[in-house]
Amino acid sequence: MKSLSEDRLLAWLRGRLRRQDEDLLGDDGALLDRIERPVVTVDQQIEGVHFPSGLPLDIRARRLLAVNLSDLAAMGAAPRYALLTLALPPGLNPKPLFIALLDACKKNGLILAGGDLATASVFVATLSLIGALDSRSRVPARGNAKPSWNLWLGGSLGESAVGRDLLSRGATIRGRSISLPPLPRMSAHAQRGARRAIRRHLLPRPQMELGRWLASQSEAAAIDISDGFALDLHRLCSESGVGAEIDARALDEACGCSSLARKLALDPRELSLAGGEDYVLLFALPAASEPPEDLHCRRIGTVTKTLEIVLLEDGRAENLERKGWDHLQSESAPSHLS
Amino acid sequence: MKSLSEDRLLAWLRGRLRRQDEDLLGDDGALLDRIERPVVTVDQQIEGVHFPSGLPLDIRARRLLAVNLSDLAAMGAAPRYALLTLALPPGLNPKPLFIALLDACKKNGLILAGGDLATASVFVATLSLIGALDSRSRVPARGNAKPSWNLWLGGSLGESAVGRDLLSRGATIRGRSISLPPLPRMSAHAQRGARRAIRRHLLPRPQMELGRWLASQSEAAAIDISDGFALDLHRLCSESGVGAEIDARALDEACGCSSLARKLALDPRELSLAGGEDYVLLFALPAASEPPEDLHCRRIGTVTKTLEIVLLEDGRAENLERKGWDHLQSESAPSHLS
Repeated sequence: MKSLSEDRLLAWLRGRLRRQDEDLLGDDGALLDRIERPVVTVDQQIEGVHFPSGLPLDIRARRLLAVNLSDLAAMGAAPRYALLTLALPPGLNPKPLFIALLDACKKNGLILAGGDLATASVFVATLSLIGALDSRSRVPARGNAKPSWNLWLGGSLGESAVGRDLLSRGATIRGRSISLPPLPRMSAHAQRGARRAIRRHLLPRPQMELGRWLASQSEAAAIDISDGFALDLHRLCSESGVGAEIDARALDEACGCSSLARKLALDPRELSLAGGEDYVLLFALPAASEPPEDLHCRRIGTVTKTLEIVLLEDGRAENLERKGWDHLQSESAPSHLS
Repeated sequence: MKSLSEDRLLAWLRGRLRRQDEDLLGDDGALLDRIERPVVTVDQQIEGVHFPSGLPLDIRARRLLAVNLSDLAAMGAAPRYALLTLALPPGLNPKPLFIALLDACKKNGLILAGGDLATASVFVATLSLIGALDSRSRVPARGNAKPSWNLWLGGSLGESAVGRDLLSRGATIRGRSISLPPLPRMSAHAQRGARRAIRRHLLPRPQMELGRWLASQSEAAAIDISDGFALDLHRLCSESGVGAEIDARALDEACGCSSLARKLALDPRELSLAGGEDYVLLFALPAASEPPEDLHCRRIGTVTKTLEIVLLEDGRAENLERKGWDHLQSESAPSHLS
């Protein structure tokens, strides 16, 4: 990287931004347009922790943005501005990362408003997002859920964890092509599913539309499932001071890739409960309210008055353990998978 | 750290914030109060890059905030909200960092509005700040400077670089006490100066009041000197499309610790020009305008129409080289010092 100085990189970046009248990088900070109801969030992606070493830079950039957007989705906010910091191992040319990030920002209505660069022994990227909540909207806060409301899932569970497992077995990505690790007796169909799981893990699709719909409702509670369904359900219930009854059959149906998981000797139920990094919304709505059909949500249970969180199966109620990712205790995988 | 889970740390942190009615950490993001003219900035601090390994966590926290505030100062904005991410080596208890950060935030009118935690092989902390520009103020942007304006410094130069040098020679900090490395023939006075330089390096004092005054002026240009006077002067001139004449004698007088530097076999002039991490404001004002005396600023030169940036000494003009820190090319020290 001796040939790429910080100021030259910045000049190159500002050249790209100027073309879109979006250059806010000239000063020590950036003066933004007024935001009536600002919503902020921040997330980081660390090589070897949040994604495997050697992942192409454009995918790192898109993943960083996607996991951040998923937080804004849970708040019902529209993306506006982004702030980026990069800690880069010496010799790594960050241009492909910037190209992908600016492209993804543009598609999501975001303007890069600032950043900071440094070299370090490990790649760390952090992104702060500033969003805007519509004047007629309200945050579907985790603490809003009330007894007798229904619990819903915005998408499937477990597929991301299968993708992570395949990556840990040696799946690799080069450009748009994914090479699978040696796997026993997989049909072409199963191999397509395996590639889809890896893509889903690396490039989650934040549920912005669902988040906006939830924020347009007079009553709703939502949480972004990043650390595992069970843990994030516990968090939602704890913030709301409620319990929950989860229908085990509905939960199993929410697993996006049961047969693939079994082929990999993984337990689909475990993946759904604690696989993590699903980046779909778990939300609660009054019984009379239902999300629009075209958002393909799934009802999975009920909010209860007791503080217990249980899984209902064949008439039996079993306590649902508070398990999932803990970012201070697990360095690169949730304990139940390692 | 097996005993400290992410959720327990968060509960502890929210307990502290609730006492001040400042708990914004319950959801995936935070809804903030309206900010009429938001100003944003972001910076990171990496162990072994921005500060020596083993630095106490409370000092890391205060340094992280100070270098960020210095950017807001250069924009003339008042601090409002902060977002923190931490990448922590396993086993490091981050509570002392949070205690110091929350204390420093409170003193500066900042509310912690969000964050993210992960374990990593190296300590990386990033802070994003959201500030507010007063309705009667304007950003003293780097690009505002005009020929015939005077150039000013908000404080002394070089002292921080001396402090960094002493740390690289083995100075250590424990609690409030600084132990100096073995140094040849230093008087008690010189030793006090050495300790002051280390403190200045680790805990810079952002010039918030000067920044607000500059933003209250109808015409001003400012830049935060973080990467060295010469480099940041080049940046200001380049953004403004102007040149500069710097009075070498005034520059030498701005060096906060010439005699100490010489004792350490460092060139005071070099330290002033390219030592970096001074975190004082370099600014330009119309000739008729002067900063308030109690802010102790120093006039050091003039903005010129030609694009040349020169040092005037004994009637001779010498080109002022564009040197200082480059965060992509130097891993832990500016090239001229290593």
